[in-house]
Amino acid sequence: MFIDQLIKKIIEKRNPTVVGLDPQEYLIPQCIIKKYGEEIESIGEVLWQLNKVIIDQIAPLVPAVKLQIAFYERWGIEGLKAYQKTIQYAKEKELIVIGDIKRGDISSTAQAYAIAHLEGPFACDGVTVNPFMGSDSIRPFLDLCKRHEKGSFILTKTSNPSSKEFQNLVVEEKPLYLHIAYKVEEWGKSLIGDYGYSSIGAVVGATHPKEARELRKAMPHTFFLVPGYGAQGARAEDILSCFDERGLGAIVNSSRGIIGAHLKEKGRDISLEYFKNSVRNATEKMQKDLLKGLERNAKYKVY
Amino acid sequence: MFIDQLIKKIIEKRNPTVVGLDPQEYLIPQCIIKKYGEEIESIGEVLWQLNKVIIDQIAPLVPAVKLQIAFYERWGIEGLKAYQKTIQYAKEKELIVIGDIKRGDISSTAQAYAIAHLEGPFACDGVTVNPFMGSDSIRPFLDLCKRHEKGSFILTKTSNPSSKEFQNLVVEEKPLYLHIAYKVEEWGKSLIGDYGYSSIGAVVGATHPKEARELRKAMPHTFFLVPGYGAQGARAEDILSCFDERGLGAIVNSSRGIIGAHLKEKGRDISLEYFKNSVRNATEKMQKDLLKGLERNAKYKVY
Repeated sequence: MFIDQLIKKIIEKRNPTVVGLDPQEYLIPQCIIKKYGEEIESIGEVLWQLNKVIIDQIAPLVPAVKLQIAFYERWGIEGLKAYQKTIQYAKEKELIVIGDIKRGDISSTAQAYAIAHLEGPFACDGVTVNPFMGSDSIRPFLDLCKRHEKGSFILTKTSNPSSKEFQNLVVEEKPLYLHIAYKVEEWGKSLIGDYGYSSIGAVVGATHPKEARELRKAMPHTFFLVPGYGAQGARAEDILSCFDERGLGAIVNSSRGIIGAHLKEKGRDISLEYFKNSVRNATEKMQKDLLKGLERNAKYKVY
Repeated sequence: MFIDQLIKKIIEKRNPTVVGLDPQEYLIPQCIIKKYGEEIESIGEVLWQLNKVIIDQIAPLVPAVKLQIAFYERWGIEGLKAYQKTIQYAKEKELIVIGDIKRGDISSTAQAYAIAHLEGPFACDGVTVNPFMGSDSIRPFLDLCKRHEKGSFILTKTSNPSSKEFQNLVVEEKPLYLHIAYKVEEWGKSLIGDYGYSSIGAVVGATHPKEARELRKAMPHTFFLVPGYGAQGARAEDILSCFDERGLGAIVNSSRGIIGAHLKEKGRDISLEYFKNSVRNATEKMQKDLLKGLERNAKYKVY
């Protein structure tokens, strides 16, 4: 089962971190661009080689990676080839691979997306899904999660400032995101694994600690994928409310904070060795920060 | 300006129809599959040849096509190559091309999607966008719509049965979709063209005629992209409330009703000539039905 495998790996690595492989242009070290081509045609090769270096560094340290497909789609066919190759390579390195696709559509269209990203050409272990169109948009993902032991994280409360515009509107004395939360719990109830969590999870932004606490309560069987740590401003103590008393219940994403850590220190003109160290150090620092927070708070230690 | 060009073409062709190029497997005529390859590797060629036949038939009759990217993404790289080629060919035939991508993400990620689909490798004339994450997710699309005279249709009230689960929740005595509608009007206000409509439009399902009427009132400057006609059950009289008194204000999508019209008559085992006639006849019938409805209702005829 997806969620059990994810939790087992988190415990094994003592690390509830998922590294975001979001290769935005401005953070790619010059040495990789110089080696693999500065022409637009070679962008696929650059993205793939960059990811390979990162994966080699982080594979022993973290349970999972998350690929934001937009940063590959942006380069068209060549970018998506790199996306595909990266998924494959991360799987070979025994990382759990989450496709951050945020697709949301209905019936046969939702099914086409679910096939593409859970079973077919871009198959990941788990994906993110947008719930705006309701159950019709979720069902095909549930079906394939069941059939292939995969996972889906449903956007519930996102980390961006304007997420409040709709997600916090009050319906029957409760914000919209709580109504979504109840639905996510319902959608996930037939996919609950050994740790009490479902393979249908939720995306819950780390930038809203109070809301995270509320959602943790409202969704006792729902595992959280938590973006917003590091570069987006959330700190370790902000996200502790996403975890349960055992120190489980959430995996925290960092992207720029890890694969762009060199920018603050030295910029892009660095050696490959420097980049490798920077990625590894940032990953280890994040693990340390998270564990410190969790150890202070979790009543029952599972790590 | 995107919206003025779209409206001009609608008037010129006397046809507020957009044909959905949604090549689901089950509707592709056997003759095309036999000619261009039955192997999975040749799926890209099959999709592209199918679309080429359809476009050649409909280009003189309709102002626009809409491509549901999920049905290409589902086949991976080969499918997306066909998507790209189809966009190019439809533009050469002077059709307005709408990418039904329903992407929704934030800041730099939203920007990557906007570049991919309005400026870069998959550039269409307009796209559909999911508003769940608020203004942060819309802004990059607005920026590129301004810079390149493109358009975006924001999901406001979708045509599927479960759209009511969240979109109809009541906030301050008004359904959520109305709150979205007010935002869409606001987002579009700096992109209003000669006919009083903005290049930032809304997706409004044809299966909810009462709601369409309410939304038409709430969004006087917002052009509607209306799915759900034909196969999804909406009839011409259902969608009239999406139009204004001039008979403008909306473009109606039909996909299966046109490119799958042969299924009801004869099934998939048909000649290429039969398929061409079937596509053309279905398109002409839809135009006739829409115009009949509009002529009965529009006070000022623009067609």
